[in-house]
Amino acid sequence: MEDLQFLNLAIMEAQKARDSTWTNPLVGAVIVKNHKVLATGYHHKFGQVHAEIDALNNLADIHDARNATIYITLEPCSHYGKTPPCANRLITVGIKRVVIGQKDPNPLVAGKGITLLENAGVSVDLIGHTEYLNMKYNFFFKNKRPFITLKYAMTLDGKINQYKSSRSIISNYTSYLDTQNLRADNQAILIGETTLIADNPQLNVRTKTMEFPPIKIILVNSADSLDSSLNIFQGTEPVWILSRRISKKHWPKNIQVYSNSHWSVKDIINFLNKKEIQSLLVEGGSSIHAKFVSANLVDELVIYIAPKIFGGSSLPAIYGVTNSNNFDMTIKDISQLDGDIRIIARRTN
Amino acid sequence: MEDLQFLNLAIMEAQKARDSTWTNPLVGAVIVKNHKVLATGYHHKFGQVHAEIDALNNLADIHDARNATIYITLEPCSHYGKTPPCANRLITVGIKRVVIGQKDPNPLVAGKGITLLENAGVSVDLIGHTEYLNMKYNFFFKNKRPFITLKYAMTLDGKINQYKSSRSIISNYTSYLDTQNLRADNQAILIGETTLIADNPQLNVRTKTMEFPPIKIILVNSADSLDSSLNIFQGTEPVWILSRRISKKHWPKNIQVYSNSHWSVKDIINFLNKKEIQSLLVEGGSSIHAKFVSANLVDELVIYIAPKIFGGSSLPAIYGVTNSNNFDMTIKDISQLDGDIRIIARRTN
Repeated sequence: MEDLQFLNLAIMEAQKARDSTWTNPLVGAVIVKNHKVLATGYHHKFGQVHAEIDALNNLADIHDARNATIYITLEPCSHYGKTPPCANRLITVGIKRVVIGQKDPNPLVAGKGITLLENAGVSVDLIGHTEYLNMKYNFFFKNKRPFITLKYAMTLDGKINQYKSSRSIISNYTSYLDTQNLRADNQAILIGETTLIADNPQLNVRTKTMEFPPIKIILVNSADSLDSSLNIFQGTEPVWILSRRISKKHWPKNIQVYSNSHWSVKDIINFLNKKEIQSLLVEGGSSIHAKFVSANLVDELVIYIAPKIFGGSSLPAIYGVTNSNNFDMTIKDISQLDGDIRIIARRTN
Repeated sequence: MEDLQFLNLAIMEAQKARDSTWTNPLVGAVIVKNHKVLATGYHHKFGQVHAEIDALNNLADIHDARNATIYITLEPCSHYGKTPPCANRLITVGIKRVVIGQKDPNPLVAGKGITLLENAGVSVDLIGHTEYLNMKYNFFFKNKRPFITLKYAMTLDGKINQYKSSRSIISNYTSYLDTQNLRADNQAILIGETTLIADNPQLNVRTKTMEFPPIKIILVNSADSLDSSLNIFQGTEPVWILSRRISKKHWPKNIQVYSNSHWSVKDIINFLNKKEIQSLLVEGGSSIHAKFVSANLVDELVIYIAPKIFGGSSLPAIYGVTNSNNFDMTIKDISQLDGDIRIIARRTN
């Protein structure tokens, strides 16, 4: 009972860093002695100290760590990364017992932190309950690819655009705000060239300032043919252009061009794996949706439904030949957004 | 306060006859004297006595009606129909006060019942609160056409059939049961010829026995070319065939053929008006949906969404050129049906 209570406190600590840890997991830590909390800490930001070290730093006196118990939502690291290994530090300061939420799925750690502690005579308990804190981080290491979310706003008859080549406003303002949070929850956002031209989106998060905003990825035929006045090029956020033709242009520092004669969905995912991107939001258009569904590479659907009918002449949510055999999902959430409906569905097979 | 309580009791009486009054409204009545209920009654069934008369019949002694108050969910009738006018009977038995939920929108009554009572010195109070009992009945007389519901089951990407000419099972069993209730709530169900052939539906209500089941209406090119082994012809429920060609065949008693060189949506509605059909459920296919949307003749949408993706090669919920300008709706209800989702949307403009 007491263990779970302190671990819950560590979870609350971890959550303070939401949107700031980039590809690092959210982690919280609580140091306890004689049933009393001596210090708390969390991983504040990508590149900064880990949660355990933050908690140790918050002790009134580092000698208080001797014989204390530390609760950590994730296994302490065992490798020299941006910071030295936390497991070693816990041993050095004399921590007696470590209660861990989940093993770190990152192969650089993956149990090695626990082994290090146990070999040094520290008592270790792995008690679960914290996996949900870093769902996409866990998914990435388990499945060796990013968690892929497909998002679209459609009418009651499944249409995403009234006329094929121009943009229709479908969702209301509440849905718009919600999509901003959805963007903030992903490390990269991908759109195709048709959507880039027809919608001319900024593709940024407009409701909060993010130190690590999602990378805007656009899939185009030729980077050098793109109009530099497009909204997507006006921000300072990183833009990755996946281009079928080689670029000879000089681009601003935040814009990178990656050339490949053919960018299949699998090529894109392999590229993201190399870049260690753990989560991808696919925002259209409907032919890109068809390609991801056909490649069997959709883990979650987020659909905003507006109470409208566009009819048979309009553009469907998924367009073009699609292999969707046995593509079954489970409804995870239905919410009313001020007159619109949001449905979240998760892949089941 | 007391008036509302007795009227609520009358509403509960009225609801006992759900599915049995056919094109007649649900009506309940309560007779009260000295704050005590002396009798209750309701209109049991199409063709049988009205609620007021049923309540009077339930009095221990008809003389108790003298100086009593009667609560009726709908204005008493003033015309000789299948039964003599109820207003006259209330006057005859000496009712002192009549509390009415709503005026009867049927032009045969429409205030004449109230006038009759008042002219006879009976006190009348019209207090509302009962309109919802007979939403479609009220709609029919107010708008001079049936209330039209469009129903379809679709995937998360707005598709109603995986392959165009064969039937896909989309919804689960709970949704299936729900559609049976939806059918029972309508006086007629319409489908087009493509759906008739591809789905071969029975188009009946399979979850309850109905004395007045919805009339099955099929819109076809030539009645005489239809295969008589189709499921729709196997039941005993009335079938109306709207045929573009004249029929020379001899049909069973429950099947009627109506020929017209062109059955536009407006033609169909005019026909239903003549038949005094107050509610129509349109069950596909997607070209028929497009026609009703284009004709601006959809009052409610009932959509069942299954957690599946069919993709771009599949048949959309609405197919073919559609004029859907300014076709806005409001979400009235969202329900989870054991993994499926049901959305009910009502026309707002």
